[in-house]
Amino acid sequence: MTKPFMFEKPLGMRDTLPLLYETKTEIRNKMSNEIKLWGYQFIETPALEFYDTIGEASAILDRQLFKLLDQQGHSLVMRPDMTAPIARVAASKLLKQQIPIRLAYSENVYRAQQREGGKPAEFEQIGIECIGNDSISADAEIIALLVSVLQTAGLREFKVSIGQVGFLQELFLSILGNEERAAVLRKFLYEKNYVGYREHVKSLPLSSIDKQRLIQFTTLRGGEEAIEKAMELLENGRGKEKLIELKELYVQLKEFGVEQYISFDLTLVSHMSYYTGALFEVYAGQVGSPIGNGGRYDSLYAKFGWNTPATGFAIRMDGLTEALGEPAKAEPIECVLFSREQKREALVFAKDKRADGKRIVIQDINAVQDVDAFTATFSGVHFFIGKGGASRDE
Amino acid sequence: MTKPFMFEKPLGMRDTLPLLYETKTEIRNKMSNEIKLWGYQFIETPALEFYDTIGEASAILDRQLFKLLDQQGHSLVMRPDMTAPIARVAASKLLKQQIPIRLAYSENVYRAQQREGGKPAEFEQIGIECIGNDSISADAEIIALLVSVLQTAGLREFKVSIGQVGFLQELFLSILGNEERAAVLRKFLYEKNYVGYREHVKSLPLSSIDKQRLIQFTTLRGGEEAIEKAMELLENGRGKEKLIELKELYVQLKEFGVEQYISFDLTLVSHMSYYTGALFEVYAGQVGSPIGNGGRYDSLYAKFGWNTPATGFAIRMDGLTEALGEPAKAEPIECVLFSREQKREALVFAKDKRADGKRIVIQDINAVQDVDAFTATFSGVHFFIGKGGASRDE
Repeated sequence: MTKPFMFEKPLGMRDTLPLLYETKTEIRNKMSNEIKLWGYQFIETPALEFYDTIGEASAILDRQLFKLLDQQGHSLVMRPDMTAPIARVAASKLLKQQIPIRLAYSENVYRAQQREGGKPAEFEQIGIECIGNDSISADAEIIALLVSVLQTAGLREFKVSIGQVGFLQELFLSILGNEERAAVLRKFLYEKNYVGYREHVKSLPLSSIDKQRLIQFTTLRGGEEAIEKAMELLENGRGKEKLIELKELYVQLKEFGVEQYISFDLTLVSHMSYYTGALFEVYAGQVGSPIGNGGRYDSLYAKFGWNTPATGFAIRMDGLTEALGEPAKAEPIECVLFSREQKREALVFAKDKRADGKRIVIQDINAVQDVDAFTATFSGVHFFIGKGGASRDE
Repeated sequence: MTKPFMFEKPLGMRDTLPLLYETKTEIRNKMSNEIKLWGYQFIETPALEFYDTIGEASAILDRQLFKLLDQQGHSLVMRPDMTAPIARVAASKLLKQQIPIRLAYSENVYRAQQREGGKPAEFEQIGIECIGNDSISADAEIIALLVSVLQTAGLREFKVSIGQVGFLQELFLSILGNEERAAVLRKFLYEKNYVGYREHVKSLPLSSIDKQRLIQFTTLRGGEEAIEKAMELLENGRGKEKLIELKELYVQLKEFGVEQYISFDLTLVSHMSYYTGALFEVYAGQVGSPIGNGGRYDSLYAKFGWNTPATGFAIRMDGLTEALGEPAKAEPIECVLFSREQKREALVFAKDKRADGKRIVIQDINAVQDVDAFTATFSGVHFFIGKGGASRDE
């Protein structure tokens, strides 16, 4: 533990410089606008919450939480996601009579990282929550909205990969018999370690038919046919119902006209442990990790004393920005360099330019150490120097 | 230390619900746009910084810092202001050749509060920094920009009260002889405790003439004449130079045409200990505390290994929103309630509405528990229910 050098930042913390800032602002504005057009209302919650409320309700691993003590001795956390804080707000306010409620957010969340060169520890999520709505039409609506938001942001090539954690869990429990064993297999799937999964399945004390079912399960990825294949793996019961729901979801997504963005992956599990039904991840272009995810979480609200279903998604701004590739064009900024004698003329000139929507800096030339280096940073320079006469543009 | 109730938030933390969120967004967009037109470029820095770099460079009291340890054992702070983080960025990047640099920000900052019912511990600041520019024209520019930004936000009645901490310090040292005594008087002024100030002055072992000068000093508030009166309190030297600079600043502010918003208060000191010259606070309407402040800080950058002058301001979004009074009008949101049979028609209808820029919710009527309570929250409702026929509007 050495003293940090004066320019260093904590692990996983980043600065956003002007060009990226403008790019993000532009993307955020487009997405927010589309989300508002679907009737979702934005809210903001604090960066700090009580550990006992939000830290425990959140699905983020404890070691990923930034924790601190307040001056009253309470454990606080920096919000690791927005779903739990929004549940706190929605459950505490008198909105319950008005369900379904549609809320949205665009906020930074905080997750401590272990190693240098890894993931950001602070990153922006834009997302929505549809609360008090257990219909498949709500699942379809939020996926259609997700597609619409990504299209509006300018993204062309992307896939929303849909799974069903309820089906997966039924299948695992029916074959494996207990949650501990299911958890081991889920972990392999979460890590997308299919080789490890198969090796582990082979080592289990199961009939060869059951082993075959578990191996076959890993092939349930692709188009609509993956659901049909999944049907063959289960006899009856709740697992099958979940697959029927998934088929209905696909029918409804076709009604929204978004089917070309949809694929299925019944092996999909999430690090967010609160998902209970349909869940999904968004993949785009060359970006290695999902740029968004979401799903149905029908148990979280019970932690806030309100037994109500909910579904939502979050898009990661950093992943989306990477997927979009092209940064925003830097807006041109011009500069007016003036000396005392022509300052009035310079100010009038700058004011007129601004009235036309142009970005323009006004700068006293006597306060510039290196005029060439300074003016090189602008798209145009106007001189108002010396006694009278017209300005000289460069 | 009891366990918090599930809906509670840490001391000083607040939720922002939809109407206030939209109001703030609208104000922020107007202000950001004006700041960009003046050629300032927005950047973002992380919420967490090293205590040894930003915590120490910041002018915020240690007990107001939210501190935590990272997993590597470093002390971190949640940024208590944006001026120090921006100094870290500006001093570390290769922007030095391009000075003066003009940067802007719109971020939440964090200051721990001691008591219930007090000030927010998280609040948004919109501000700018003009770095590497020691001219009076830079001081004038940022005050003119401040006025312009507040006007653009829709604020009509406000005052920018300007002081000169360099003059105040020269006067105090020349009369009191040492910094300890000066610090005691500055504290009275910071608390605007003029009665306490006078009592304390009377108790000091000074000549009656010097006591009279210190008492008279507290009357140096009002229009331009306050500067002339201040001249009489000092013989010569740097203090007088500072007053001459202040007069020149006023001349330049008149050139910008913003003099009706300007007043002087030579007793002005700041809790931000890094100010070195002209400094100011903005007051508006009935809001009890300043809605903005700023000034010249020519020593901060030395802490980042770069001996360069700087000046800047920050506007508090909460204070400004309060001063503006009127919240944004809630954007009307309409609702389409559909049943399975007419879902396609409902989706087309909603899509067309959105294409016209209207906000519209689509909702499966079968998933609504209380249709009357739900529809009461919308500005209009369109039914697409049952077999065929036209929609029924309410």
